[in-house]
Formats: sequence, structure tokens, C-alpha cells
Amino acid sequence: MTSAEMQFMQEAIQLSIENLKGNRGGPFGAIIVKDGIIVGRGYNQVTSTNDPTAHAEIVAIRDACQNLNSFQLDGCVLYTSCEPCPMCLGAIYWARPSKIYYACTRHDAAAINFDDAFIYNELITPISERKIPTEQMMREEAILAFRLWQDKLDKVKY
Amino acid sequence: MTSAEMQFMQEAIQLSIENLKGNRGGPFGAIIVKDGIIVGRGYNQVTSTNDPTAHAEIVAIRDACQNLNSFQLDGCVLYTSCEPCPMCLGAIYWARPSKIYYACTRHDAAAINFDDAFIYNELITPISERKIPTEQMMREEAILAFRLWQDKLDKVKY
Repeated sequence: MTSAEMQFMQEAIQLSIENLKGNRGGPFGAIIVKDGIIVGRGYNQVTSTNDPTAHAEIVAIRDACQNLNSFQLDGCVLYTSCEPCPMCLGAIYWARPSKIYYACTRHDAAAINFDDAFIYNELITPISERKIPTEQMMREEAILAFRLWQDKLDKVKY
Repeated sequence: MTSAEMQFMQEAIQLSIENLKGNRGGPFGAIIVKDGIIVGRGYNQVTSTNDPTAHAEIVAIRDACQNLNSFQLDGCVLYTSCEPCPMCLGAIYWARPSKIYYACTRHDAAAINFDDAFIYNELITPISERKIPTEQMMREEAILAFRLWQDKLDKVKY
């Protein structure tokens, strides 16, 4: 752990503390660093903005992508004050930073009633047995869009 | 499958087709319905808005939550033209709609190079073995925010 890395994590932790003091959402903060410079910041804003997706990591990823003018975070490092939930981990894998540092664990989060375990379990449960009833319908109609995508010559892949 | 359900799914499919024709992103659309009324719409905007989190379901959830002025989707039904990826499934579980209908499967998506399987696998891989290197640091410093949260009297739980 270098002192620069510790300073960046301290910044993420500071966001988590300011956030709960400012009543903007849960006690979580994250920053994204590229070439030693902070390019994105995020804190949990679920309850203050009525956005269940506004976790610290998602907000930081969106902020960094806007600042970098890119939908990929190549060469970026994410510092988050807590191990990402499945939603955020999914977002991280789509954004593809090079490295993740986290501080508290999912078990620490569960101890203050932010319990990701339920979601981790649902993700690996067969669709027919999930707690939110989930049914397939109209695949034949929907797959037309996929065929059009396949044949499209000017698509932006990712 | 009622005719109303089929009409709603057709609307989600229509968004997926318009989206790829309009070059806004991948061929995915989603809508959210409450009490028979569409309260949120989304289509994939990853490449056109430089936002890797802008999948159809996430956009629809954010839209519905803004329209309903709530960070929860109680009593809502999500119609999505494709089985949600892990990020979107995580977002769905945080937003807690009552039901999910999907059309294409994750395998259909993989066949046009939107491969969620890698992310599903990473989510259940031990942290030390993941493809994006992930390390813990400074838990003792970060857990202070969790203790402050626990002691906070005016917090908005969710």
C-alpha cells in the first residue's frame, strides 16, 4: 500500500462520512483515479434523489465516464469505502477499470442492515425459484431486434 | 399471458428496435408499469451517453422512480426485451418491483456479443481470484462511517 493509495482511499472514506452527515444517503463513498488524478467521485444518493441505482460506485463511474468522455474506464483505479454490491460489481465489470480497492466488507455492510447477501443468492438461483416472480414471454417477437443488430453495419460495439 | 401484458412487452420490444435504428445503443428496451399505466421507459444508451450503467432496465428504473417520486417500485411490473444482466438484476432487487417479464434470454444476448456470463462467473468467484485485481485496505478507518450511521438518529433507512 503506497501513501498515494492510502490518500485516495481516505478521500473515498471522507465522502462516506460527509454523505451521512449531510443526509444524502447511506455511508458509502467512492472515487476513481487515472494517472494519479481523481477523475470521478460518488457517494450514495438513493434516498435523497429517489434513485435506487445511485450507489457510490455507480455515481463515481458515471461521473468519471462523463469527465473522460468514454464509456470505458481503461487504466482507472476504483477506491470504494465498502465492497461493491452485485449491482455495482456488475457496473464495474461493464466499465472495466484496471483495479479495485475496497475497505469495509459486505459483512460489515450487512451488520448495519445493508444486506447484499440476498441479492448475491438470487443471482445464482434458477429464474423459476426467485423471490421476484420472473417469467419469459414473446421471445420470438423480441429477437427481431437482435437480428437487426447483427446485420447493422454502423453499430458502435462495446 | 393477457393481451395487456403482451401490449406492454410489445412496447418494450418497440423501444429496443427504435433504439438500434436511432444509434443510441444496444438493442434493448424496458418499461415499468404500475396499475396498468406505463410509469417508466428505458433503452440502452451506453455508447451514445458515455454511461456504462445506462442499460434499458437501469434507465427505466431511474425514470419510473423519478415519476413516482420514490426509491422503491412497490406494485410495479418490469417488462424487458431481454433477461437482465447482473448489474440490472441487482438494480431490480434494490428497487423491488413485484414482477419481471423478459423476452430474449442471456444466451440470445451472448449470441450477439453481449455476454453476461463472464460477469455472472466473476460475481461468484472468490475476490482473490477475480479478473479485475481487487484488494482490501483501511477497513479500520472506513468502518467509522458505519458506526456513525448506526448511531445516527435521523437516518432514512432503505
